[in-house]
Amino acid sequence: MMDFLDRRVVHAGGFVFKEGDSGDQAFIIQAGAVELLKGETVFAELSANTIFGEMALIDGAPRMATARAKTETTLIVIPRSVVDGKLKGVDPFVTKLLGILVQNVRSMAAKLG
Amino acid sequence: MMDFLDRRVVHAGGFVFKEGDSGDQAFIIQAGAVELLKGETVFAELSANTIFGEMALIDGAPRMATARAKTETTLIVIPRSVVDGKLKGVDPFVTKLLGILVQNVRSMAAKLG
Repeated sequence: MMDFLDRRVVHAGGFVFKEGDSGDQAFIIQAGAVELLKGETVFAELSANTIFGEMALIDGAPRMATARAKTETTLIVIPRSVVDGKLKGVDPFVTKLLGILVQNVRSMAAKLG
Repeated sequence: MMDFLDRRVVHAGGFVFKEGDSGDQAFIIQAGAVELLKGETVFAELSANTIFGEMALIDGAPRMATARAKTETTLIVIPRSVVDGKLKGVDPFVTKLLGILVQNVRSMAAKLG
């Protein structure tokens, strides 16, 4: 499914997105590494094949963290339309579950931040 | 969808489940209040209409926290079979997303605990 999706290359130290941004894309790391920060504090380091940024596509809330490339990084860009397509026709119980889990991550992140 | 599901009544101070238990049920609070604890520390208080305990049904991992009734509480019991049924036929991308979100909640909870 990934072949038709855009790639984005971010140089070391470059930002994928910043805390508080609105978001309409998720990303899969094809090569490289990405750090997640709250303020100046790195709280996660993500490596190849990791997806991130997906929560904004589920609940529409602003980015809860900043994502910064640690090394030159190639990202597969997943636009909102792809996720919306996947969620179309899914049982409401499942979309509810997704929403709850996103809420849980956000409220926990708020306690870490 | 809720009418055919079992109820469980837990007295004030009673445990719904304990950290480390294996889990094959999720719960919706119909009436009452539930506290979530890591060790002796309460990190969340849940009120009516909140679902909890759903993560074990998604990833099969042990309970990451203890759930204790704060007041007499009536729970709607969601067995694994109901969730499995809802997830059957769902696009693998969506089940992957669920798994990732559960992982994120667990790794953040580990940092809080």
